[in-house]
Amino acid sequence: MVRATLVQIDNYGPWTVTPEPRRETDLQTLQARLYADLSQAFGAHDSTVFFSRFDNVVAFTEGVSVEDHRVVQRSVNNRYPVTVSMGVADGATPRDAVETASALLQAEGSAQDSGREARLAVETDDTDGDEGVQVAHFDIESATERYTDELDAYGCQLLVERAGLALMEEMWEHDAATFFVGGDNYISVTPFLDEDAFAEAVAVVEDTTRVELKVGVGEGATPAEAGMRAKHCLERSRNGGGRVEFY
Amino acid sequence: MVRATLVQIDNYGPWTVTPEPRRETDLQTLQARLYADLSQAFGAHDSTVFFSRFDNVVAFTEGVSVEDHRVVQRSVNNRYPVTVSMGVADGATPRDAVETASALLQAEGSAQDSGREARLAVETDDTDGDEGVQVAHFDIESATERYTDELDAYGCQLLVERAGLALMEEMWEHDAATFFVGGDNYISVTPFLDEDAFAEAVAVVEDTTRVELKVGVGEGATPAEAGMRAKHCLERSRNGGGRVEFY
Amino acid sequence: MVRATLVQIDNYGPWTVTPEPRRETDLQTLQARLYADLSQAFGAHDSTVFFSRFDNVVAFTEGVSVEDHRVVQRSVNNRYPVTVSMGVADGATPRDAVETASALLQAEGSAQDSGREARLAVETDDTDGDEGVQVAHFDIESATERYTDELDAYGCQLLVERAGLALMEEMWEHDAATFFVGGDNYISVTPFLDEDAFAEAVAVVEDTTRVELKVGVGEGATPAEAGMRAKHCLERSRNGGGRVEFY
Amino acid sequence: MVRATLVQIDNYGPWTVTPEPRRETDLQTLQARLYADLSQAFGAHDSTVFFSRFDNVVAFTEGVSVEDHRVVQRSVNNRYPVTVSMGVADGATPRDAVETASALLQAEGSAQDSGREARLAVETDDTDGDEGVQVAHFDIESATERYTDELDAYGCQLLVERAGLALMEEMWEHDAATFFVGGDNYISVTPFLDEDAFAEAVAVVEDTTRVELKVGVGEGATPAEAGMRAKHCLERSRNGGGRVEFY
Repeated sequence: MVRATLVQIDNYGPWTVTPEPRRETDLQTLQARLYADLSQAFGAHDSTVFFSRFDNVVAFTEGVSVEDHRVVQRSVNNRYPVTVSMGVADGATPRDAVETASALLQAEGSAQDSGREARLAVETDDTDGDEGVQVAHFDIESATERYTDELDAYGCQLLVERAGLALMEEMWEHDAATFFVGGDNYISVTPFLDEDAFAEAVAVVEDTTRVELKVGVGEGATPAEAGMRAKHCLERSRNGGGRVEFY
Repeated sequence: MVRATLVQIDNYGPWTVTPEPRRETDLQTLQARLYADLSQAFGAHDSTVFFSRFDNVVAFTEGVSVEDHRVVQRSVNNRYPVTVSMGVADGATPRDAVETASALLQAEGSAQDSGREARLAVETDDTDGDEGVQVAHFDIESATERYTDELDAYGCQLLVERAGLALMEEMWEHDAATFFVGGDNYISVTPFLDEDAFAEAVAVVEDTTRVELKVGVGEGATPAEAGMRAKHCLERSRNGGGRVEFY
Repeated sequence: MVRATLVQIDNYGPWTVTPEPRRETDLQTLQARLYADLSQAFGAHDSTVFFSRFDNVVAFTEGVSVEDHRVVQRSVNNRYPVTVSMGVADGATPRDAVETASALLQAEGSAQDSGREARLAVETDDTDGDEGVQVAHFDIESATERYTDELDAYGCQLLVERAGLALMEEMWEHDAATFFVGGDNYISVTPFLDEDAFAEAVAVVEDTTRVELKVGVGEGATPAEAGMRAKHCLERSRNGGGRVEFY
Repeated sequence: MVRATLVQIDNYGPWTVTPEPRRETDLQTLQARLYADLSQAFGAHDSTVFFSRFDNVVAFTEGVSVEDHRVVQRSVNNRYPVTVSMGVADGATPRDAVETASALLQAEGSAQDSGREARLAVETDDTDGDEGVQVAHFDIESATERYTDELDAYGCQLLVERAGLALMEEMWEHDAATFFVGGDNYISVTPFLDEDAFAEAVAVVEDTTRVELKVGVGEGATPAEAGMRAKHCLERSRNGGGRVEFY
C-alpha cells in the first residue's frame, strides 16, 4: 500500500490569462514558490514531492493524515492568489495510488471548473500494514565529465530529458512513478521491484538513448527514509559500486 | 543577435552529498526558490528565464548589462548556501548564444571544480542592431478536456513530456531553444522563423506523438515583450484562430 | 506550563561583514525569508512565531517535540548560508520559558562564537498537565481612520511603536511576552491573566501614550488555537463589543 | 532632494478577517515574503527598503523611475492574494518625502477602501540636482557581550526597542527616517546632517535609555551606495574608531 496526493491548482489556466495574459516570469515565480512550499510542508511529514507539471504536483504521502493535508492546503490558500484542491489515495502500487488520487479529483470537477475550489477528496485505507515504501534514485554515469562540461547546456538538457523520458515510460510499465528532480537525477517511487527490474530499466534506457544510468534503491517506513537510503546506495555506486546498488 | 545567460550552481553535485546526502525536499526547495529568484531578478529586466535542469538555468537577456548580471549574482551569492557562476553571450541565433555562453562557463572550470566560484564570463557584442527577439508560446489543443480531466496525472505528464521532447528536438534543429514552463505550455526563443516553420514543427509533433499543439508567435524588443505578444496570439488561437497564430 | 523556543542565527554579526559588509537589502531578504520559513514550519505544528530581532526569533511551541524541532533546524541549515541554534524550554509562565530557553542557548556558547553551530539545547518537562495556552491579540482603536489615513506613514509607525513598547513593558511585568505582528497589531502570550489585568494594561498604555487599545483574549490547547480564539474575540470588540473581550 | 516610496497593501485589515480571521502564521509568512520581494526588487535599483509596519513598507528610491515602480507593483499584484498601492514623492528631506508620499496615497482613498486597488500616485521632480543621499547605520556598543549573551532574548529585545524608539523619535526631529533592520541595528536616511547632529543623537539615546550607540555615516549617489559606506564607517568604529565615524 502506498499513498499518493495530487495537488492541482484550481482553474489555473483561465486565471493566467484573466483579464489578460500575465507576465511569464511572474507565473514561473508563483509556480516555483508554490512547489517549494509544498516540498517543505509535506517534507516535514517525511513525504516526497515532485513538481510534475507545476499546476499538478504529485506527492507520496505515506502516513500523512487528512488533517495534515488540510493544514497544508489552508496555508497555501491563505497566501496565494489561486487555490489548490487535493486528491489523496492509497493504492497497491504507486501507479494505482496516482490513478485513484487523479480520479478522486476529477470527480470533484474539471481542472478548469470555476466552481471547484479548495476541495480535498480522500480515499485512504487505514488498515494498511506498514509495509513501507521503496524508492530508487537514478543519475547519469559521469554526467559532469561526459556532458555538462562538454556539451552546451541545452544539448545536455535534451540528453537528460531523452534518457529521463525513456526511464519514466519504462518504469511506469512497472507501476512506478518517476520524476526529474534536477541536474541529471530522477527519483522513482516503486512497488517493491527486485534488483533485476532496475538492471533491466537501466539497460533499456541505454539501448534506447545511449545514456548510461546508475541507480541506488532504498526501502523505508516513509518516502523520505527510503529516499535517503537510496541516496546512500547511489553514493556506493559512485564510489566503485555497481550500476545498481540495492539495499 | 540574441543574448543568452547560463547560470550554473558551482560545485553543486558534491555539495548535495557533503558531508552526507541532504534531504531531497530541502534540495527541491532550494532549487525552486533559486529559480524563482532568478525569474524575478531577470524578469525585472524584461528577460525570460527557464529552469532547464535547475542546477543549470538558461535565461534570454537581451539588453541586460554586465553590471545587471553582477547585481543578480551578488544577491544570490549573499543568500544561498551555494554560489552561482554565469556565462553571458550574444549569438546569431538562440542556439549560438546558448552554445557560446556554455563554452565561456566551461572555460572557467568544471561544474564540479571546487576552485571555480562566482565567475562571470561575458562575451557580448555591443554593436548589435536592436533587431529584437522572436518568441513562440505553444500549448496542447484542448489539454484540459482531452487529458487533464481524463487521464491520471502521471499519464498526462508523460504525454506532455513526449510531445514536448519531440518539439524541443525539432525546434533545436531550427536553432531555437524550447522549454517546458508548466501545465501543457512550452516556450521557444526562436531565430525569426517564418510561419511555415512553426506549422511544420506542430505537424512533426503530431505525427510523432499524436498530440496536437497550437502556437502563438510574437516579436518584440525584449524577450518579455515578444513573449507577451506570443501569448496574445495564442489567445487568438484559443478563440477560434488557427493552429499557428503569427504576429 | 508553556513551551518557548529561541532560534538564534549562529555567529550572524560577523558573517554579515565577512569578508566585507554585505548589501543590506540581501540581509533583509534573508532574514525575512528565514522568519517566513520558521513561521510556516512551526505554524504547521500549531505554534506561533514572532520575528523578535530577526537574528533571534521567539516561538511558542507547546506540544512540539524535540524531533520536530530537529526537522525544522535541519531544513534551515540545508538551505541558508548561515546555521541556526535553538533553545527549547518549558516554564511556568511565558517569561520563565523564554528566560530558560535563552539560558540554555547561552550555555552552548556566545551568539558570536564561531565554534557554536547548529546546537539544539532542550529542557522540557513531559509531565505537563495540558493546561493549554492563553493568547491576547491587541490592536489600536480605529487605527485606519485616526492614524493611517491621517498621519504620514512614519508618524503613524512611531505612534504604533510608542504604544507597543509601553504595552510590551507592561505585559512583561505580568510575565507575558508581547510582539508586534504588523499593522497596528500586537500579540501577547500570557500566563492565564484575568480580565482585569488586560483592562489595566490597556489603561496604562492609554495613560502613557494617549493611544487607545482594544484586546481579544483566547485560550486553547495550542498557541494557534488560543490565538484564533483571541482574534474572534477581537472581532467581537470591533463589532460593538468592549475594549477587552474575554473568552 | 530625496525620493521616498510608500507601499501599502490595499484593504488589508478587512482581508485578514474575511470570511473569518486567517491563521496568524500565514499572515506573518505573507507579510515577510512580500517585504523580502520588495527588498529584492527595489534593492536591484540600489534602493533601501524598510519593513516599517509590514502592511505599510517605506523605501527610499532615489533614481527609480515610475516605470520601474510599475514593474515591481505588477509583479506583486500577480503573485499575492492582495494588491498594493504606492505613493512616490521627492522631498527636500526624508521626512518631507515620506509625508508627501503618504499624502499622495491618502488622496487615492483610505487604506481600507475596497474600491482603491493597485494605485500608483507619483509626484517627482525630475530636475533634481543629483545631490545624492546620506545614510547612517547605528548599532549598540558591545551588544552581544553586554546583552545578547547576558540577558534573556525578550529582555534584550525590549532594550533594543527602547533605545531604538528614542533614536527614531530624536532623528525624526532632524527630518530623518530611522528603521530597525534586525539584531541591534538601525538605519537612518538623513538630510545631510553634520557630525555633531549624530553625536547629539547618540548622547540623547544614552541619556534616556542608558544604551550606548555607535554610528557610521555615509553618503552616495544612491541609498545602497550611501548605506554601504555607512557600514564601512561603522566597521571603523568597531575596530577602535570613535562613537561617530563620518565619511
